[in-house]
Order: sequence, then C-alpha cells, then structure tokens
Amino acid sequence: MIEKYSIRTDLALEQKERFEADNVEISGVVLEEKYDEERDIKVTTVRIETENGARTMGKPVGTYITLEAPELAVPDEGYHREVSEEILRFLRRLLDMGKEDYSVLVVGLGNRQVTPDALGPYVADNLNITRHIVKEYGKYAMGKDQVRLLSAIVPGVMGQTGMETVEIIRGVVRETKPDAVIAIDALAARNSRRLNRTVQISDTGISPGSGIGNQRSAITEETVGVPVVAIGVPTVVDAATIVGDAMENLIAQMERSETMKGVGVVLQGYNAAEKYELVKELIAPHLNGMFVTPKDVDETVKRISFTISEALNRLFA
Amino acid sequence: MIEKYSIRTDLALEQKERFEADNVEISGVVLEEKYDEERDIKVTTVRIETENGARTMGKPVGTYITLEAPELAVPDEGYHREVSEEILRFLRRLLDMGKEDYSVLVVGLGNRQVTPDALGPYVADNLNITRHIVKEYGKYAMGKDQVRLLSAIVPGVMGQTGMETVEIIRGVVRETKPDAVIAIDALAARNSRRLNRTVQISDTGISPGSGIGNQRSAITEETVGVPVVAIGVPTVVDAATIVGDAMENLIAQMERSETMKGVGVVLQGYNAAEKYELVKELIAPHLNGMFVTPKDVDETVKRISFTISEALNRLFA
Amino acid sequence: MIEKYSIRTDLALEQKERFEADNVEISGVVLEEKYDEERDIKVTTVRIETENGARTMGKPVGTYITLEAPELAVPDEGYHREVSEEILRFLRRLLDMGKEDYSVLVVGLGNRQVTPDALGPYVADNLNITRHIVKEYGKYAMGKDQVRLLSAIVPGVMGQTGMETVEIIRGVVRETKPDAVIAIDALAARNSRRLNRTVQISDTGISPGSGIGNQRSAITEETVGVPVVAIGVPTVVDAATIVGDAMENLIAQMERSETMKGVGVVLQGYNAAEKYELVKELIAPHLNGMFVTPKDVDETVKRISFTISEALNRLFA
Amino acid sequence: MIEKYSIRTDLALEQKERFEADNVEISGVVLEEKYDEERDIKVTTVRIETENGARTMGKPVGTYITLEAPELAVPDEGYHREVSEEILRFLRRLLDMGKEDYSVLVVGLGNRQVTPDALGPYVADNLNITRHIVKEYGKYAMGKDQVRLLSAIVPGVMGQTGMETVEIIRGVVRETKPDAVIAIDALAARNSRRLNRTVQISDTGISPGSGIGNQRSAITEETVGVPVVAIGVPTVVDAATIVGDAMENLIAQMERSETMKGVGVVLQGYNAAEKYELVKELIAPHLNGMFVTPKDVDETVKRISFTISEALNRLFA
Repeated sequence: MIEKYSIRTDLALEQKERFEADNVEISGVVLEEKYDEERDIKVTTVRIETENGARTMGKPVGTYITLEAPELAVPDEGYHREVSEEILRFLRRLLDMGKEDYSVLVVGLGNRQVTPDALGPYVADNLNITRHIVKEYGKYAMGKDQVRLLSAIVPGVMGQTGMETVEIIRGVVRETKPDAVIAIDALAARNSRRLNRTVQISDTGISPGSGIGNQRSAITEETVGVPVVAIGVPTVVDAATIVGDAMENLIAQMERSETMKGVGVVLQGYNAAEKYELVKELIAPHLNGMFVTPKDVDETVKRISFTISEALNRLFA
Repeated sequence: MIEKYSIRTDLALEQKERFEADNVEISGVVLEEKYDEERDIKVTTVRIETENGARTMGKPVGTYITLEAPELAVPDEGYHREVSEEILRFLRRLLDMGKEDYSVLVVGLGNRQVTPDALGPYVADNLNITRHIVKEYGKYAMGKDQVRLLSAIVPGVMGQTGMETVEIIRGVVRETKPDAVIAIDALAARNSRRLNRTVQISDTGISPGSGIGNQRSAITEETVGVPVVAIGVPTVVDAATIVGDAMENLIAQMERSETMKGVGVVLQGYNAAEKYELVKELIAPHLNGMFVTPKDVDETVKRISFTISEALNRLFA
Repeated sequence: MIEKYSIRTDLALEQKERFEADNVEISGVVLEEKYDEERDIKVTTVRIETENGARTMGKPVGTYITLEAPELAVPDEGYHREVSEEILRFLRRLLDMGKEDYSVLVVGLGNRQVTPDALGPYVADNLNITRHIVKEYGKYAMGKDQVRLLSAIVPGVMGQTGMETVEIIRGVVRETKPDAVIAIDALAARNSRRLNRTVQISDTGISPGSGIGNQRSAITEETVGVPVVAIGVPTVVDAATIVGDAMENLIAQMERSETMKGVGVVLQGYNAAEKYELVKELIAPHLNGMFVTPKDVDETVKRISFTISEALNRLFA
Repeated sequence: MIEKYSIRTDLALEQKERFEADNVEISGVVLEEKYDEERDIKVTTVRIETENGARTMGKPVGTYITLEAPELAVPDEGYHREVSEEILRFLRRLLDMGKEDYSVLVVGLGNRQVTPDALGPYVADNLNITRHIVKEYGKYAMGKDQVRLLSAIVPGVMGQTGMETVEIIRGVVRETKPDAVIAIDALAARNSRRLNRTVQISDTGISPGSGIGNQRSAITEETVGVPVVAIGVPTVVDAATIVGDAMENLIAQMERSETMKGVGVVLQGYNAAEKYELVKELIAPHLNGMFVTPKDVDETVKRISFTISEALNRLFA
C-alpha cells in the first residue's frame, strides 16, 4: 500500500479504521462496538489509554464515542428524538455531573456564515440558557432543588475576530468559572458517507487543527482550565483527502486488475515512496483550503443541530 | 411642567436639552455646537467636567460628541463617505493613538436577531481584522511601519449567553490585552426624529442600562481594564417615553389652549406631583420592554453600520 | 368619547371591541366566544355576514377566528403543540378540503430582515414541501392514497422587489395552479397585550393596507384567482395608535378625576371634534411608519412561526 | 487520453478548453481573447454561432463573455470598482438597451442558506430597486428623463418552494412585463483555480442543469418570454469532476513517468474505454450531489456579490 498522505479525519473511529485496513495492531487503543439493529444506530467507543496509543492515533488519551445513524440526514422527528436521547446518555457518561449543582459553558465553534461550519452556532441558538436567571433570581427560580447553570458563547472564527478561539474561551472561563465546557464543532471526515450521519462525543476537548476552519490551538482542560467535552459532527471531507483516496484506490485496483495485469505487475515492483511521489503532485496545492460537502447541507446541519440542542436542553432541564 | 418620569435617552445631547427646556443651568457641563450648512451636519460636543455635572446628567464625566446628519437615513454614497470621515476624525480625537503601535478590540454589542439592535454585530461583520495576521506573519505583513492590531467580538446578549456582556469582554481583554476597546451599540433616543440620523461618540464607555437590550452592567475602563470609546446610534425610542412625552405635550397644550381655556386655568392650579400621578398609570406597565422603531429600520441600520465600519477600517488601515 | 382617529388594527376582534366600547350595535356581524379554562385559550369567531357589516367593520365579508393564548409567548413545548392543533382544526374548517387531492401554495408575507415582520418567511422556512416530489415521482411517492401538494413562496416586500406582492402571487398562481393560497403575515394590533399571543385565521385573504409593511393591494380570491385563507399574528402596534390611545385615556381619566374635577367639568363642555383637534397634532406625523414591538420579539416570533408551520405540516402530512 | 466522463462545467470557456486540449476543432464556435496586463484582467469571448457548434459545446447559440480577474478574491476596493465597470460594459453590450425607457427584472437564483449558492440572493439584496417608485410617483420621480425600471426577485430553490424556478419567473414576467430578465447564479467550474475569480456573462439565459442546485428547467427567452441575460460566478467544482480530473492526470502521468516506464508502456496498450471503466467505479455514486468549495467562500461570495450589484445599480442609475 501507498503510504498515507494528506489524509485527514477528525473522527477517532476513522483513524482506527486506517490502521485496521493495514492490519496494524495499535497497543493502548481499545475498540468497542454495539449495533442497535432495530433503530439502525451503531455506537463505537474508541478508548485511547496510553501515551503510545495517543501518539500512533494522533489524538489525545481519552474516550471517543461515535454514533452512526444513517437516518440522521432524514427528517424523521421520532428518530431524531431517539438519537437525541442517545447523545444525552453519552454526555452524562463523559461529564462528571456527580456534584449537586453544576455549571457548564457551551461553546458553539465554527463560522455561522459558511453553512457546513455553522453547526456549533446553530446548536447554541437553540439552547435554553439559564445561568443569568439563576444568578438573578436564585436557586429556586427554575423550580428545582438542583442548580444547573447553562451559559453559551459563539466566539466566531479567527478571520472574523483576529483572536485564537482558545483565547476567547479561556478569558470567558476565567471570568464566569463554569465547571466544564462543552464544545460543539463541525468536523472533517475521511469518508463522505459519514457526513451528517455521525456524531462523535469525546472527553478530550478539541485537538489543534481539527474542525473546518482549522483553528490552530487546542481547546482542552490544559488550555482553558476546566474539563472540555467535545461534540462533533462531520459535515465536510477535505478536498485533498477525497482526491488522494480516489487515487490510492485507482492504483490498488490497477494492481488487481485483470485487464491491466501488466500494469499491476509493474506497479508491484515499485515501492510506496515512488508511488507516493507520483500521487503527491496531483493533489494540487490549491486544493488546500477546499472542502467537499453535500448540496443539501443546509437542511441536514439545521436538523442535526436541533437534535444536539435537544440533548443539551434535557441535560440541563 | 410635570416632573420627568419614565423618560429615557442614551444621548447626552438630549439629556442636556431636557434641562434647557426647563431653563435649568447645570454647572460642570459644557456644550459646544457647530453646524456645517453645506453638508447639513450638526456636531454637538457635551463635556461633563465635574462629578456634580455627572450626577445631574446621569452620565459619567467625559466627552460626548454627537453628529446629527439628516441624510444619514438616505442611500447617498458620497454623503455617507463624508460622515464616515467625520466619525474617523472624532475617533482620533477620543482615542489616544499617540503610541506608534496600537491594538484595539471592537465589541459589537446588541442582538443580531432583533433588527434595530443589530447595529453592533453588523459593524463587526464589515471590519478588516488584522490582529491574527500580524501575530502570525509579523509587523511588516501589512506593509506598514506602524502596527495597528484590530480584533473584534460579537458577544451576544444575556438571554443568549447567560452571561453579563462585561464578563465576556473583561475575560477577552485580559487574555488578548488590547490598548483600548471600541464598543458599538444601538441606543434609545427620546426624540424619534433623531433615529438613524445621529451618531454619538464618547470616551466614557457604555453606561449601565443603556442600549436596547438594557445590559445591566457598565462597560468602562473601570470594569474592563482599558479605556472604552463608545459609538452609538439611536435606532429606537422607548414606548413609555413616546407615550409620556405625548401626554406631557397634551397637558401643556391644554394649559395654553384658547378653546379649552377653562381646562388650562384649572390645570395650572394643580402641582406637578398631581399631574404626574395622572399620567403615570396611563403608561401601562406592559409598555416596559417595548420599543418604537421605523419600518425601514433594516435598510437604515445596514447603511449606517457600513458608514461606521468604514471609519474604523480607515482608522486601522 | 373622542372620535376614533389614527387607530389601526388588523384584528377583526379588536375592530368589534371598539364598537362595543361605544355601545354601537353592528348589524350583519355575529360574534361567538369560547373559553377553554384548562388550557387558557380563548377562541372568538367574528362572522361578517352582510355588506353593511363589512362596511362598518372596514373588513370584507367572511369568517375571522381569533385564538388568544397568553402562554404563546412562553417556551412551553406541550402548550405550543395544543395551540398548533387548534390552528389545524380551524384551517380544516376554513379550507374546503373536500376533494380527494388538494394543492396549496403557502405565501410567507413580510420582510425577513425586520424581526417582527419575519413571521411569514420563518413559517415558510419550516414547511415540508411536497409538490415537486409528487410531480417528479408520482402520487404514491409520499406513501399516501390522497395527494396533498404543498408549495411555498417568500415574495419579499415592495422595497426589495419593486413589485406589488399580489403581482408576484397572481403570476405564480397562474403558472402553478394551486387550489388555494394560505397567506401568513405579521399583523398590527391595537392592544399591545395581544402581541405574540394571538392568532387570527380568516377565509377572506389579506386586506389592503394590513400587515407591517402596509402592502397596498389586497391578496384575495378576486385578485389572485383562488380562495385565500390568511393566518396572522399581531407582532406590532402602530406608534400613532399607542399614543392616540394613551391620550384618549388621559382625557377620559381627567373627566372622571376627583382631584381634577374642575378639568373634567370643563372638558365635558367641549365636543368630540374639539378634543380631536387637540389630540391630532400631538400625534406627530413622523410617528407614521413607526411601530411598537417587544424587545424579545426575536424569540417569540421564532417560536410562534414553529407552531404555525407545525399545523401546516400536519395539514399536508 | 481517456474519454471525458462526469466532467461538468457551466463555463463556456472551459468547455472550449477541453476540446482544445484534445486538439479538436469545433466549427461554429469563435474564440476571442484580450488581456489587460496592467489590471491583470483577461476577457475571453466565446461565440457559439451555429446549431452544430451548440451541439458540440452542449450550450445554446449565443455570446459568452468570461472575465478572469485573479484579484477578485481579494478585498481591494479600487480593483473591484474596475471589475464592476467591466461587467457594466458587457451588460450594455448584451442587453439591447436601445429603447428610451427600459424595464428589467433581476432574478437572484440559488439557495440563500448554502453559502456558495447564495450569490444570486446576495446580489438582489444590494440593488437599488426603482420600479415601484416610478409606478407610484411617475417618470420624473427619479430625476431623469429616461425611465429605467428595476425590479428583483429571489425565487428560492425547488426544495424550498416545490416549484420549478422557471414557473415562478414566468409567472412574475407575465404579470409585471419587464423588457428583459437578468439572472444571477452561482456556477460550477471544472478548474478549482477559477473559483471566485471569474465572471461569465451571456445572452443565452440559464441552461438546464447548471448552477449548484441543478435546477432542471432552462430559464431562457423561450421559457420566460423575454430575453434573458445571465451573470454567473463559479463558486464550486463538482466533487466527481475534481476526482475524475485527478485520476485522469494520474494515468497520463503514469504513461509519461520515467520511474514507471513499464506501467506507461502497458497503459498505452489499453484503449480509452478500458481506462474509462477503471476510473468510473472509483467515482463513487455518493459523490453525486457533493461539491468542492473554498473555506473562505463566505467572504469571497459576499465581496463579488457587491461588485455585481454595483454594476447593476450603475446600469439602472
């Protein structure tokens, strides 16, 4: 196989798959799969347990729960409610809500003006914010014994603010002292079939360079001062990834092709580095900064953002 | 005259006018007017110089420059450019740009979802943000000797964030350390004829309770840690103000009315407190939280926001 | 009482109330009220049965159902579902859905850029449009025996299009031949307490001069060629109305006032015309084109638009 | 060379280039190029003069002017003004504005909710609409002897309206009788380097299947009843196109490769059909309905829409 190049994914699940495809065993990474046939929801939990596993996976130690629900792109209200409950269950697992009273800041990452990147802002738009009410009218204003303070911010992207997103969040966290941050972001997947059908929830925050806008700095417990749970939905594939993937497949198919047996024989004689050179140039540099997304991305992003808001609203109800 | 009640204005100019109407001299407040006949632009500078003046005016010590330009509501590009230059001139006067290198955070206050309150967010949308470019590529990336770092944030309103706006700004200022903040906000005027035709620039920041969304806490040098210049445009009148004003005028007119001379004579026999009682109840409590705004507010707010962005972009060019 | 002046309402209910306040009997107009105590929903049906009634009411012959639901401005999902069902019931009554197959064009009137006027566009945004699917894949594509074709258009306002809204709708109706039009519009009420808590459904279309943008021409069966059912929600009060109302109350209160008995006696000596003259000037002409609306209009309009979309989606499911 | 497959472009210029690449002479198609070095603007005029040329090109007989301006994606106000004037010049050439009085309907095609498809709606947002003013106040209201009526509509896309865009436009044209339609649309290019740097203006209307949303029916003089000038800007590349192109290049490079000379020799032995089969499957069907677009598409589309609005506003000033 050709060496991996320019392949980018924000999904731990897809990172794991790449190694499996190559039959590489990764120590320190545990995978668990569950499939709910009736509702056609597949849940994969990737647990990166050691620093070695983290290095190989290129993702920090922690738990990554991925929910694949093919019907998520379809306007079925009942189905969305079930996915919403699933997300709620995972959030409860990853957030340490042991304390009686709890305060969370939701951060809607991404660019509201670019449709596939607007997931975070849209989720923030539909939250039932309570922090100011409790601050003003006291603990019992919400009619509960337990206080759940929900606040939210849509920080914008660096081209709009001139600031690293982490600077804004760290500043807001220091002033308003939430117990945790939940960061919502649109992600890049490797496989276009996963777009708008997948939700990844992790307790590791946001890694540098992930998301659509490629924010450079990490949003993690280390950088903002409180635990960060991340909820991400892949809405784009990097253009370079889709092209690289297709060409890799072309070469693989040539090697196996009956019609082109001759080509295959020759190709097998070349090493990965040589093939890599061949492909590299074809992924034109102007493809950097380009992404692939479906034409109906407006409807699917809107719909999934509701499903996530719903889970968050229940968590804090 | 009836005592003032429920009259609200964010314009220092209008506050001053009220006292003038009652022939009240305010010590510690200096007024200066200039009228440019050719361009029909009137500039009024109110300087509150003493604590006593501040108490009487209900506004902090500082300089308030008001620019009244009746044509501001009209789509005349050339005219807007001239107003833009006027604003630029005042910003230079109020901002201490003495230093070679300078860094400013623009804050677009208000609610993007409520048209007359969207001025601040719209201004932020059209800025040429540079801070991240200079941080990344160094001082000469912009082709200038002098470095002007411009960053911006649209914090949202308390109902959306659950946080006081000042908490967000203070946090961001502490992290990113600008030399000054420029806060843009939609204001409430007393006189509906001033709507969308007036720009107020002051070096005192934003007072508590001003703006449309009535943010409770001040955004000033004391609360955020760096000087705050405020740019405001009145886009609404409080509903209670418009009703109270009209009724006050009705009573005044009755007192002078020839036809109703009898009413006038009787009314003059009653004191302000009695008349105040009469009017108070008629300003129904449900008018609180209501504002008056013109039907074409979408076009005028959009247009003026460009004019202000333009001034800011030139300031940092 | 002073003669009515500058009072404007798009609600048949409020028009009726004005005559009742003056104890004027209107022949040809029938009123029916029902109150559902448990859910706190009041339904008033005004039936204008004769041309004489229409002239007096200033509204065309037809049925006007008004639903007043104080909780409509509050984010209670269950309550909104019940109101939605109520709207659905009334739509079924007013639309002649006798035919097996049915095709309706929903028109989202108003200006998306001005929050209280955006109700119509927001409702259109959330509809499950089916006409193109059935046209493409045939009657059974939707899994139903009965075909309900739903199409929608957001025509914009005259300042944006340069065209009368009725010209656009008539053109679209002639090309696409729906059996009926449902027009959604934001309305002006007289009483600010009705804002965002009231839904009016009528089988008479849209009258000239109603709505916020004051479209001049009617949208009715006569002008577009098919029956027009209108759904309206009052989101604004005319500024002139709120001022005129308050002053009328002031004069009435003076006439009754114990403290100002003298004023009352004198006032009673003057006739309506004299008082009218007094008030008229105070409603400054610059108040024309101004409206009053609540500060949280963004949230309430968004919420009610969902409730109406929901009713329409069920009607065509 | 491999046969062309799944390559899609809305630019006549690119269609022409494909044949040139293959050294195919097309009769009935004339090409003219001009390059303005100083301003770095390249203007290519493709004139399809015969039905035969039209068939080969897959585009109707007519004139297609393409303006390539690399700086168009950059925020240089002066440059944009020059491009704007260039567009104005071409519009004057293609629109028969011979008559004294003239009336044009601008149609903003595309989906406002999907950023790269929002070009048409954005252009419409910034027009100075005059038709209603002239209709209301007469010919001299605009202070001109000559009357230029400008109207505009943003019809939405089929998923939102349930109607073919052409049905809406035809209906509106029949009612309001403009002399011509100018349709603005976001296009698909073949070459990602052309995105947001190219403007195509043609007198042939919009072909079936062009644009991002793939409206199925043509918008042309035949279908709407008046001449249709189209202004298009490529903002996306079809995902299948980008992948197909890359793979074609890979194969071409293998054939020429020194390192893989063996592969080349074998490949040359296979015919186009065999290679086509090989590639076809790799362009996964799920890539249909996917497009490639740059991450900063929000800024570039906003900027270019201003440049086009500006040209139209001058044309009708």
